[in-house]
Amino acid sequence: MIKKTKPKLRVIPLGGLEEVGRNMMIIEYNYDIIIVDMGLQFPEEDMPGIDYIIPNISYLKGKENNIRGVIVTHGHYDHIGGIPHLMPKLGNPTIFTTKLTRAIIEKRQEDYRNSDSLNFYTIDPDDKIKLGVFKIEFFRVNHNIPDGVGIAIHTPEGLMVHTGDFKFDHSPVNDAPAEIGKIARFGAQKVLALFSDSTNAESEGYSISESAIGEAMDQIISGAPGRIIIGTFSSLLSRIQQIINIASKYERKVAIEGFSMKTNVDIAIKLGYLKVPPKVIIGIDEANRMDPKKVIIMCTGAQGEGKAVLMRIANKEHRKIQIEKGDTVIFSSSVIPGNENSVQKLKDSLSREGAHIVHYKLMDVHTGGHAHVEDLKMMMQLTKPKYFIPIHGNRYFLQLHAKIASSIGIPEKNIFVADNGQVMEFENDEGKLLRQTVPSDHVFVDGLGVGDVSNIVLRDRQMMSEDGMLVVIATLEGRTGKLIGSPDIISRGFVYMKESKKLIEQTRKRIKTILIDKDPKMSLNETYIRNKIRDDIGQFLFTKTQRRPMILPVIIEV
Amino acid sequence: MIKKTKPKLRVIPLGGLEEVGRNMMIIEYNYDIIIVDMGLQFPEEDMPGIDYIIPNISYLKGKENNIRGVIVTHGHYDHIGGIPHLMPKLGNPTIFTTKLTRAIIEKRQEDYRNSDSLNFYTIDPDDKIKLGVFKIEFFRVNHNIPDGVGIAIHTPEGLMVHTGDFKFDHSPVNDAPAEIGKIARFGAQKVLALFSDSTNAESEGYSISESAIGEAMDQIISGAPGRIIIGTFSSLLSRIQQIINIASKYERKVAIEGFSMKTNVDIAIKLGYLKVPPKVIIGIDEANRMDPKKVIIMCTGAQGEGKAVLMRIANKEHRKIQIEKGDTVIFSSSVIPGNENSVQKLKDSLSREGAHIVHYKLMDVHTGGHAHVEDLKMMMQLTKPKYFIPIHGNRYFLQLHAKIASSIGIPEKNIFVADNGQVMEFENDEGKLLRQTVPSDHVFVDGLGVGDVSNIVLRDRQMMSEDGMLVVIATLEGRTGKLIGSPDIISRGFVYMKESKKLIEQTRKRIKTILIDKDPKMSLNETYIRNKIRDDIGQFLFTKTQRRPMILPVIIEV
Repeated sequence: MIKKTKPKLRVIPLGGLEEVGRNMMIIEYNYDIIIVDMGLQFPEEDMPGIDYIIPNISYLKGKENNIRGVIVTHGHYDHIGGIPHLMPKLGNPTIFTTKLTRAIIEKRQEDYRNSDSLNFYTIDPDDKIKLGVFKIEFFRVNHNIPDGVGIAIHTPEGLMVHTGDFKFDHSPVNDAPAEIGKIARFGAQKVLALFSDSTNAESEGYSISESAIGEAMDQIISGAPGRIIIGTFSSLLSRIQQIINIASKYERKVAIEGFSMKTNVDIAIKLGYLKVPPKVIIGIDEANRMDPKKVIIMCTGAQGEGKAVLMRIANKEHRKIQIEKGDTVIFSSSVIPGNENSVQKLKDSLSREGAHIVHYKLMDVHTGGHAHVEDLKMMMQLTKPKYFIPIHGNRYFLQLHAKIASSIGIPEKNIFVADNGQVMEFENDEGKLLRQTVPSDHVFVDGLGVGDVSNIVLRDRQMMSEDGMLVVIATLEGRTGKLIGSPDIISRGFVYMKESKKLIEQTRKRIKTILIDKDPKMSLNETYIRNKIRDDIGQFLFTKTQRRPMILPVIIEV
Repeated sequence: MIKKTKPKLRVIPLGGLEEVGRNMMIIEYNYDIIIVDMGLQFPEEDMPGIDYIIPNISYLKGKENNIRGVIVTHGHYDHIGGIPHLMPKLGNPTIFTTKLTRAIIEKRQEDYRNSDSLNFYTIDPDDKIKLGVFKIEFFRVNHNIPDGVGIAIHTPEGLMVHTGDFKFDHSPVNDAPAEIGKIARFGAQKVLALFSDSTNAESEGYSISESAIGEAMDQIISGAPGRIIIGTFSSLLSRIQQIINIASKYERKVAIEGFSMKTNVDIAIKLGYLKVPPKVIIGIDEANRMDPKKVIIMCTGAQGEGKAVLMRIANKEHRKIQIEKGDTVIFSSSVIPGNENSVQKLKDSLSREGAHIVHYKLMDVHTGGHAHVEDLKMMMQLTKPKYFIPIHGNRYFLQLHAKIASSIGIPEKNIFVADNGQVMEFENDEGKLLRQTVPSDHVFVDGLGVGDVSNIVLRDRQMMSEDGMLVVIATLEGRTGKLIGSPDIISRGFVYMKESKKLIEQTRKRIKTILIDKDPKMSLNETYIRNKIRDDIGQFLFTKTQRRPMILPVIIEV
């Protein structure tokens, strides 16, 4: 006899709790599942060759029919980037999102022509929708892309609030202020749990209004003696709006360079999220014919990305833009951790060519996009949750955010600092962070392959990148196991072969000795011979060079 | 007939003008050469497997007998790290440096047992020494290691001032204040050229006194509820001194962990550069038996270095130290660009184990060690140089420093922003930055090899780290060129072989086709066959996977 138990509300973060990126959360009650966001993460240093990482959706296998919808909070890649890869595997459930976010997702989907088209339901932040047992409401938040929302989810066990990425901006640029009143009204309805953005939990005080960033930009632009080149993120529409406003104030024209930025600007203009006075945006050819004092070039590549516009300019690889003395280059985005060296090289090259460089801290995109400590407290005070779960960020940031929650009086036992894949259950007004986890390990996207690069492949890549590799090919007579000719040695990334002839000769000699001295009874135990070559030659080369190339012995029998 | 020309003074920076690191400068007049510093640079991201980079000394080949001495400004690796590798090639000229710097160089030399021992002349900052035509005087500067000096070089063409790494600290810890009066006196003697540290040319205002850093540290230590673990650089002796002082004020004991830190502390105590009250420093075993509230552990690894103490603690690999709830971990050094991700991982792990983490910006080592904008101006005002040459830092920083010089009235034509290897000449009170350069490209140290890893080897490492490699081995009959058996395929770092059997089979089939369809007249043109396999299989795999593994075809003839 199976005891029928009352279902529990389960909340499972599949990503975004141990990193910045691949945000995805599952909310499940009995046979109803909703998903919040479906992002990607950019690879870390120890993942060479990987394009990006997406959430592991094994938990949803066999449950595809339970998925009532995917809610997407805003149009950044760490919230939408997994969609082209994961949606087909989930049976293409409907995506519920705002107008701009939808347009950005659709635009990106064009790169995946073989996929089925996506199903959308465009929401207005005042909509109320029903997905299975869940009733969903939305509230506007500010971020550094317009049209972002947070979510209030009415579940059979109580009300859950998920902030998405947010800050409060009472004077945003081309966006409505965060709906503080609405959030407070959810707070009045008794919030069981608040899931809140931790990205900036280390920054004291309040976040800076996008308008203030505009004032700083205004000063720099008004004071620049010649042409201005501004590098920023292509998705940073509010920044782009401000630059356009300031340009038109100072009678400069704006040329936009970089495919993704052009695309985003087109979408945003079409949907009314970017307001451009007539004749402010011009083509690069026209810009090149104008007085440099009248020109702003806005482009991608402020992170030092190899193929983006700014790097091509710096490397003199851009067909139409070269740095000239008198140019001012403004970096209008903070450096994403890991990109510091590329950005430094970019600045060095631009400096060398005579550009004046401005990298003003106030224009920091992280300062700009996410709630600071005091904003985070305000979100807690507005929602007054019983349980608090910090999301979006590395463990360190979640922990800091937990400390903030604790500092304003949320009991420590009601604060869940969870790992990716760790299950939370809510029942009878009580929440539990279980030990139980569902798979949440990295799924690597590399070229056309999704999930076919394993940790073994990565380990091999890393090993070869450290000390290179050496292939030993020995041809043996099949019957006798006698060595025919001299073993071949091929090596890459280990030593400069042309200047290491002596070392290679010594190595060849040792291989011969191994193959000739081998126990005749073992004559053709290939595994034994291969291991012996690997160990012996590995040790020999380490003694000689202090390097450990990967050694690949190949035995050919003829 | 050879026209005898009056010799010129030549100044050649061999390193340190396009990077942070491998500082080395040559000053040459006729048959006299002096060298200032001989540092190393840590590798960048695109140099996998490299231990570090040292200056290229080709220019000095054949001039070894002209070298009158090597002056070392202070004991950091970016100023001393090239010594073990380069001194033997330069005929072991005498090193002129202060007591502590000498001890640090000697300690490091112990790792290079096969080298000849070094020749030293220990200087006092009030010494005046004569090296060939040059007369050298010194002036104390502050930095984040004691006993640093700047140099005044009286040359036949005029007085040159080289600051070394410096800041002005009027209340340093365990070190004398920078000798401002002495520098001003050099200024009164008419300085032809000032070579000045650009590392912090981006930071506004004045640098912070080490004492102020102590006050911040005092607050954190006095408020910590339990054990304190402090990670910092092993060479940051003034910080170590402050921690010892504060520990003794609050009756805590200090255990020091990490080989390099123990070594440096030993040297500094012995030479009187570190003053430790009796019984403050204890062993880790004793510390582990004590009340955690009475313990500070000071250790290496605040940069996230894989094998340093802090990382081993975080990874639970340290035999004697585990994180316990209540521990406070203080990061007392800024993050060196490129280490952000490792440091983030370290903090995540420590957080996860329950440590409270403090990473206080004021304790930033870069804030601590180098002159800020106003200090840099002060150095110029003290020396009043005719020519100004920014040194120590990436091009971007040199350019900023040049702008600062220009802002206080040094004419732009008298400011030389030079590249590594670019020659400066001084004659008749006039300086010139020549187009002429001497070799200054990277010399890589990798294990025991110095200079044997070329850019080709690095490119191969990078290529394999991106998409792996694939070795194709085909055995052909020598006479007919007929394929024997089936080609072998070995691959690493490309795809997970076990799950890519179909792709490998398709690849094998294509190789067979190439070998069978080949023009019979070309039967054994190995180069042709290899190229054909490389191109054809490369293209095939790219189409299938969007990856470009390195393809290594091997043809065996039997």
